[in-house]
Amino acid sequence: MTHGYQLHYWPLIEGRGEFVRLALEAAAAPYVDVTRGQAASGKGMPAMMHYLQDASIARPPFACPVLVDGKLVIGQSAAILLYLGPKLGLVGKSERDRLWTHQLQLTIADLVTEVHDTHHPIASSLYYEEQKAEALRRSSDFLAVRLPKFVAWFEAVLQRNPKNDRLAQRSFPHLVGARLSYADLSLFQMVEGLLYAFPKGAKRALRKSPRILALHGGVAQHKRVAAYLASERRLPFSQEGLFRRYRELDS
Amino acid sequence: MTHGYQLHYWPLIEGRGEFVRLALEAAAAPYVDVTRGQAASGKGMPAMMHYLQDASIARPPFACPVLVDGKLVIGQSAAILLYLGPKLGLVGKSERDRLWTHQLQLTIADLVTEVHDTHHPIASSLYYEEQKAEALRRSSDFLAVRLPKFVAWFEAVLQRNPKNDRLAQRSFPHLVGARLSYADLSLFQMVEGLLYAFPKGAKRALRKSPRILALHGGVAQHKRVAAYLASERRLPFSQEGLFRRYRELDS
Repeated sequence: MTHGYQLHYWPLIEGRGEFVRLALEAAAAPYVDVTRGQAASGKGMPAMMHYLQDASIARPPFACPVLVDGKLVIGQSAAILLYLGPKLGLVGKSERDRLWTHQLQLTIADLVTEVHDTHHPIASSLYYEEQKAEALRRSSDFLAVRLPKFVAWFEAVLQRNPKNDRLAQRSFPHLVGARLSYADLSLFQMVEGLLYAFPKGAKRALRKSPRILALHGGVAQHKRVAAYLASERRLPFSQEGLFRRYRELDS
Repeated sequence: MTHGYQLHYWPLIEGRGEFVRLALEAAAAPYVDVTRGQAASGKGMPAMMHYLQDASIARPPFACPVLVDGKLVIGQSAAILLYLGPKLGLVGKSERDRLWTHQLQLTIADLVTEVHDTHHPIASSLYYEEQKAEALRRSSDFLAVRLPKFVAWFEAVLQRNPKNDRLAQRSFPHLVGARLSYADLSLFQMVEGLLYAFPKGAKRALRKSPRILALHGGVAQHKRVAAYLASERRLPFSQEGLFRRYRELDS
């Protein structure tokens, strides 16, 4: 295995792994996307399953994504970003800023779960088609009640950040202070995913959120992020992922 | 307002606030349970609503529980415990132990969300009775698939902690190292809640988990925890809370 961080996640979907991948890419950190490598070279799915299933792992992650850094094995995307943030320069230096950035990330993680449950409100172990009626009801509430609440909150956070008051030309709003944080990257990914899954509903929910849209546009043009998005390392959204486009759910 | 930490949470239910309250109680930390005080003395619901709704809050929490410590305002129960852990002596000293304890807490938080969704699989804004059919399906999957997966993981974590190999008399297993952590307290509360909500299903799921049961029994006998549980400060479980007992969901 080469040097650098190891990221373990399902090989064909962005899912929760993408929040970590975006941070690694934006910081140009050396990392291996393990499951997309070959088993013959110690990568692939067997490498990930080792961390999830092998009884020799003293502190096993409950699920992926899993970050391995030397002897450290970390699960939970928000915990991974809490760990990586300072190392990648993607969080402020004060305890106050770090805690606030993490709090934002945890709220994004909550929103991720709610997005997942729009198409799987009954059980992850069942197909979408087996819970379609429930998915219609849950998505309807998600777009009418929950998403507007999250959007209003993120917009308020951007509005109340005093560093966003007078932005330099070609800059964009940030969630915390005046620098790019992993929470900004995650909010970008959230907006990307929502606009993919719910082209009508998400556009409507974001209509009166100029700061979120400016952040989304700004991150997309960040030099290293843009290069990553244009590369083969970026996986496409799909009907197997977290964000899924079912026309009937997008009311 | 008196000195010490301020905990803001809905006044009539344990909910997610209880994970924070248990840590404060176990450490005998000075705190005010703000919403249970009188508005005339600056407490009660208006004090909590100030932090959730007032545009003057620069870094507003998305939801309660909210911990206020001087000028610091923190939302998200796991982030609150990340902050409090070292101050209350309820987490190890190494970064490694702190990250692992937090990762455990985040997985407990995920389980909390799944427990909530057993009775509210469609929308928090609707009554249980309006989503009872869906609740039956979701609870059935929760007890058959999800809960056993979480239980097996926590049992494995306890089993693989080498400090649990030879326990002193009157001691009990801990999730991290040889000392009580906030994750232990939260797992205790999770077991309490599950046994309340699903007396049949939870007992079945926990049957082959001697270490979790020993932790649960041990925390209940911890001197300060036991005193707290016997006090009026401990709220009862109820049908308005996170853990609800609906006989029809307990299969």
